[in-house]
Amino acid sequence: MSAPSLPRSSIAVIVNGLPGAMGMQVSKACLARGLVLAPAALTGPGMPVSVNVDSHTVALVDATAPGAIDTMRACVAELKAKGLTPIAIDFTHPSAVNKNADMYNALGLPFVMGTTGGDREQLLKSTREAGTPAVIAPNMCKQIVAFQAMMKHMAETYPGAFEGYTLRVEESHQKTKADTSGTAKAVVESLGALVKKPMPERDIKKLRTDADSASFGVPREHLDGHAYHTYRLTSGDGSVTFEFKHNVNGRSTYAEGVADAVIFLADRVAAGKERRVYDMIDVLRSGAML
Amino acid sequence: MSAPSLPRSSIAVIVNGLPGAMGMQVSKACLARGLVLAPAALTGPGMPVSVNVDSHTVALVDATAPGAIDTMRACVAELKAKGLTPIAIDFTHPSAVNKNADMYNALGLPFVMGTTGGDREQLLKSTREAGTPAVIAPNMCKQIVAFQAMMKHMAETYPGAFEGYTLRVEESHQKTKADTSGTAKAVVESLGALVKKPMPERDIKKLRTDADSASFGVPREHLDGHAYHTYRLTSGDGSVTFEFKHNVNGRSTYAEGVADAVIFLADRVAAGKERRVYDMIDVLRSGAML
Repeated sequence: MSAPSLPRSSIAVIVNGLPGAMGMQVSKACLARGLVLAPAALTGPGMPVSVNVDSHTVALVDATAPGAIDTMRACVAELKAKGLTPIAIDFTHPSAVNKNADMYNALGLPFVMGTTGGDREQLLKSTREAGTPAVIAPNMCKQIVAFQAMMKHMAETYPGAFEGYTLRVEESHQKTKADTSGTAKAVVESLGALVKKPMPERDIKKLRTDADSASFGVPREHLDGHAYHTYRLTSGDGSVTFEFKHNVNGRSTYAEGVADAVIFLADRVAAGKERRVYDMIDVLRSGAML
Repeated sequence: MSAPSLPRSSIAVIVNGLPGAMGMQVSKACLARGLVLAPAALTGPGMPVSVNVDSHTVALVDATAPGAIDTMRACVAELKAKGLTPIAIDFTHPSAVNKNADMYNALGLPFVMGTTGGDREQLLKSTREAGTPAVIAPNMCKQIVAFQAMMKHMAETYPGAFEGYTLRVEESHQKTKADTSGTAKAVVESLGALVKKPMPERDIKKLRTDADSASFGVPREHLDGHAYHTYRLTSGDGSVTFEFKHNVNGRSTYAEGVADAVIFLADRVAAGKERRVYDMIDVLRSGAML
């Protein structure tokens, strides 16, 4: 971490998306880093009124109910009155991304947006206009973000370096994930430039059954939560093979990345930095590592 | 290739190191690209007087015999008299690297040095002082060179991005290779910066028996000529694994890289470029691809 950093015990995280699995993991990761867990959080309709995380109880506020913003405003004010710097973390639902961001912007509440989907352009635009400090990142795993950036750099620096090579891409995720991996799509764009032959998204082999995922090497206990990617480049004559893999079991690496992003953002808030909207590359560059 | 390039049929390669396996492969790769194979080449003591490559006969000149330089001077003059641009290719022996380079420099003969070992600093110094155009590269596989450059870039841009990860490196080569892979050493240096913990060379696992190499996935027919590398990064909690592999069977990719380097160098000679000593990164950047 950079030198003038905020004490971790003065940062309070409002973990919107509790009691979801990602919200739970993120809350625990933040507590393990010494951050404070705010006593209230936004959730969706039909959820329980509160949830326990370790020894902490968090009241759950239905984001779609009237007055939700007033409850959150009171929560933020209370945290600030205690001398804490509140940061919202969002792991909710694609349909809530823009509405939640509007609320953070209205409250001037810095946030880490880990939820994917929604209108991303509008999200960036409204956050920039509001001037709310935020980390907006569709993938919170810093190492995968670094890998993606590295492949992009190679493609830009040595386009065609792998001309004549054939490309094969497989990715496995829990069977509830319908769409193609966003990371795979981004990496395939770089690989297409390296082999001088763009690969259409339909050629990315998606594994979405327990049987296929297990054959791909996913441990049984992670069939319902994993992200495995294998990119293979083979030379025209078959004599050379390159293979790049990144395999993630469970959610802990994303939760750790969120905690990094929160600490990064709190420091930027404390330092009164002018630039407001960040991504995980900024977090990586800051050296705000675990 | 860049626009104003020399016709391939006007480039003559003097393949020093024939009748060695690498010399043979390189000769064939150059012929396949339409280059001319010079009728003489340097070799070591105790070799036959000539060798056939496809339908071509190449006279072999013992580089350690008196008068070797005069024979080569005559060969170069003869090629030039035919309107050809002569380029020497060196796949000889570590002990011959500096002596051969001295000869190329004395003759003003552009060269591609593929032989490893020798006094590399002296090699660069004497070649720069002589002003001889040369490509000096310990690894002629452009894709591996690009991969190495990419890892170096990631380590320099995001040092510590993989802090807390453990590193495991295995490489397999034919059993006659005594030392540790130079590529593995270079990549391990970058990976050490990424995990913030340098890995000593002795921790690179070297596989050098047919049985170990076969278990590592090397096909039987390539046990006597292969270069397999696997780098694995595992997060502290074991939930995330990154794996990078580059596996080469036989020598064709290096031979193709040499042919690329020759064409690149001949173009630079023809264009009268000021900068004289190049490496494979320069060849890559030029886009002089297969």
